[in-house]
Parts: sequence; C-alpha cells; structure tokens
Amino acid sequence: MEAKEGSPVRHFRIRRVLNAHTESVVDSVAAEEPLEIRVRYWSKDAQVSDSLALTMRTPGHDRELAAGFLLSEGIVCRAEQILALHSLGMEPSNEIVAELAKGVELEAWRLARSTFVNSACGICGKRSRDALAQELPENRNDVFRIGASVLEALPGRLRERQHAFAETGGLHAAALIDSHGGFEMVFEDIGRHNALDKLLGWCVLNNRIPLSERLLLLSSRSSFELIQKAAMAGAPALATVGGPSSLAIEAAREHGLTLVGFLRGGRFNIYSGEWRINS
Amino acid sequence: MEAKEGSPVRHFRIRRVLNAHTESVVDSVAAEEPLEIRVRYWSKDAQVSDSLALTMRTPGHDRELAAGFLLSEGIVCRAEQILALHSLGMEPSNEIVAELAKGVELEAWRLARSTFVNSACGICGKRSRDALAQELPENRNDVFRIGASVLEALPGRLRERQHAFAETGGLHAAALIDSHGGFEMVFEDIGRHNALDKLLGWCVLNNRIPLSERLLLLSSRSSFELIQKAAMAGAPALATVGGPSSLAIEAAREHGLTLVGFLRGGRFNIYSGEWRINS
Repeated sequence: MEAKEGSPVRHFRIRRVLNAHTESVVDSVAAEEPLEIRVRYWSKDAQVSDSLALTMRTPGHDRELAAGFLLSEGIVCRAEQILALHSLGMEPSNEIVAELAKGVELEAWRLARSTFVNSACGICGKRSRDALAQELPENRNDVFRIGASVLEALPGRLRERQHAFAETGGLHAAALIDSHGGFEMVFEDIGRHNALDKLLGWCVLNNRIPLSERLLLLSSRSSFELIQKAAMAGAPALATVGGPSSLAIEAAREHGLTLVGFLRGGRFNIYSGEWRINS
Repeated sequence: MEAKEGSPVRHFRIRRVLNAHTESVVDSVAAEEPLEIRVRYWSKDAQVSDSLALTMRTPGHDRELAAGFLLSEGIVCRAEQILALHSLGMEPSNEIVAELAKGVELEAWRLARSTFVNSACGICGKRSRDALAQELPENRNDVFRIGASVLEALPGRLRERQHAFAETGGLHAAALIDSHGGFEMVFEDIGRHNALDKLLGWCVLNNRIPLSERLLLLSSRSSFELIQKAAMAGAPALATVGGPSSLAIEAAREHGLTLVGFLRGGRFNIYSGEWRINS
C-alpha cells in the first residue's frame, strides 16, 4: 500500500542541456512548502494554543507529519492522545493544529526546547547540547528477525513504490516493513526527517506504537536524529540505502537498535544489533 | 585548494555482508557532532552573550561554519564585523563563540526568530511563515558567465576533491568555482546546509562577499534555504548535482539567481537565469 493524498509534484518550464543540445521542456519537480505545526493543549484547566514547529515539507499527509512530530518529540505515543487534527487556511493548507487530550504534558518539552523548533532537524530549539540526550524508551525487543536475502531485495522494491521520486528525482521515502519483507506503508517527502515522521505519524494514528515487529526502511542516509525517531517509535531495526553518521552508529548501539546502511547492489553493512539479521 | 582541518572521519568495527558472505571490517564513517554557535555582541553599550544555534555538523572548520551562519542569517557580511572566533571546551570543541563588532545589530534578527535556531535547516526559529520571506540583497549581476561545457566537467572534478566522501560515502560538498571552472575552495560536511555555510563563512572571513563573479557548486539537491544562503552571499549562480525543490526554483527566479540542477553524466537542467550560461 502506498500513501496517496495531495500532489507532491509541481511542473515548471525549464531548459534541458544534453550533449550541447538544448531544448525547452516541462519538468516535474518535488514540491516544497512550509508547514506550521500548532497544538491546543490543556495547562492547569485552561486550553492553550501555541506554535510548535515550522518545517519545509512536501504537501500531503500533513496529519501524519504532525502526529509523527508529536511522537518523535515524546509528546504523544497513542492515537487517543490526539483528539483532532485540523488543517487551517486555504488549500493547500500550510498550517495544521493538533488538539491534544487532557493529561498530555507539554511543560517538560517546553523547558527543554525553545518555543519554536523544526521537525526537519529535530535538534534545533534544544537549549543546550545536554538536551540532545533525549530520554528514549528502552528497546529490549528480541522477537524481530529478518533474513539477509530479504534485506537485499528491499531497495529495488522500495524504488518501485517511490512514485514521486520516479517523476522528480527529488524525494526521500520511508517504509514500514515486516519480517518477511512485506511493504505495509510508504511515504515520500523532500525531507528525510519528514518522510520518517509521516510514516511514524501513520503508526501513531493507527495505534501501532511501539513498532516491536517492524523494520523501518529509508532511501536516505542515517543521522543521530533519525535514530532518535526510530527509538521513540520502539522500532527494533532501521535500514538505509545511504550510510550512517558516527553519532547514528553510537546512538543505535546505545539503544539496542539494529542499524543497517549502504543497503544496495546486493550488499549492506551492519553497524549495530546484528543478532536480528539471519544469514 | 581543499580545506584541511580536524578529522571528518571516524572508524568503527562493523559487519559487511556481500553475496551471503559476511566479514568483520573496520569501516570509515562521516563524523557527526553537535556544535553550539554563540555570540557576544553590543546592545545599548553593554556586551551581551547569547546562544544562536545548535547544529549537527562534521567537526572541522567551525570558524567558517559560524561565520557562514552569521552571513546566511543577515547578521554580518564583512570580516571586520567579526572581532574574534573562539572555540570553547576540550578538543574537539563543540562550542564556538563569535565576538561581534559594535554596531552589528541583532535585535531585528531576534524579533524575527526565537532565541534558538539551527543552521542545518535555516527555517526553524522563525516565528511565522511570513518570516520565511527574508529580505535578500538584490542580485543584478550581469558580469558572470559560464560555458555549458565548463559546467558539465564540474561534477567529476568535484568528486576528485571530495576526500572524506570518497572514504565514507556520507558527506556533502560545497565548492567555489570561477567562470573558467577553476576550483577555489571546497568544504565537506554531513549536512548540505553546513557545507555551504562553511564555504560562505570562508568567503566572509576573506572579505569575498558579495560573490559577484563566482558559481557555487553543491553535491546535493537544492532547497529554498540553500537559495537564500546563495542570495545572501550575492552569488550569481548555483549548480547542484541533485535536483531542486519547487520553492528553490521559485526563489531563484525571484532573486535573479542562475539555478542549475541534475548536473551529472554530461547533462544538466537550467531552472532560472539561463542568460549566464554560454552554449
């Protein structure tokens, strides 16, 4: 199943140059638009409205993006904590409001962050380097296993599902994979953090957190922030087509997450948690 | 000339899987570490110290990164506005302080932003979507021209200079190119925004702003924020190995910047300002 909603593609008349021959063509380009994520939440029996984040994203699946951001930030982990998600303004809307249930606590989050952050980086807004060490749920999942040959087949099968990438060459994808290599859901976005947030938001809204028996597959590289998001979702494993950063490896090892990188061309590297991969 | 400083590479023992054969190897990985960018500036005859940004970057050339961030944000544009750049803490330092000259104004910037932002995204911290429309210097440069065949040769020549990428497969590069295709400077970083900020910071510190006769070359895709950075530096042209976003094209057209994308394999697309490219 692939996610369908809105249009992630825009068209522009451009000039194409090939072997000294130039022609005017209409080109398909990955859409990028700002989205402001706002919340309405309860603080001391009064409802408060505030802006949480501004992110540059590919329009479509803003509900999932907002829910995934709230999960990644440790604000919610269950569907019933989000009473409603409203898009505001004209279509395509560049503002979404998440109405949170009573009991959802934002004060600790606000203490660690400034009032305005960006889901595209996950880091910004934190008041100091110490705040990077977000408290992550322990991941002691020993159920999930996946075969090396199943892993090796995933990038080609992901590519078949990257419809907007095929048209534009400019979007990342995040997919939810079961232990047999089945694709449960795929989301695309111009930002790799957003693509993962959309996927994890879909999981939150469908009460699939923690993701104890699923692999997260990304078309991109992996960095510290993506490991944090995977850990917040309770996923046991993350595989990427690109390579990891040093901090991604260290964070994956610390949190017991299986981390695979450079998954392409029938080969891959295992950086962490190799016991979950059957040869 | 390629930038040399610190080590952008870390080593990890990992498991490599190839055609059902696995082996334990020591792998080279792109380094990722947080950097806090702080400023000391004058406000009403008193010196104020504050934190501007926290970014996840590849260590090395933090002075250039900080200077480039200050340029991209419209805070400085000349070397003499930065009195000093101190790295704090133990090596490798994850904190840098820019001491700004009297007369460098931060209040307008602070009104448009929250106190804590991230150079890796450039967007976050802005208080509303309206704040995205940063005031950019007009770019009416009609001197710079570059030949199509010169452009086509650039990606291969950039690759030869991406030393840390060659070792790790995980870093972006930003290069300063003259109209004959000469490489003046190259910086690498795990983040494409950081790579460009390091390059533009080098230009600030060497009083090379505005960059009226240079092309900026990036190994990455282009997005809205990268166009903003190029425009803040007064560069007439930006070429990327990957593709642009819709908002990158719109911003480049609005600011009169020549934008080239998918520059690889002897072909490229011109999205904006084709008059600067000679066939």
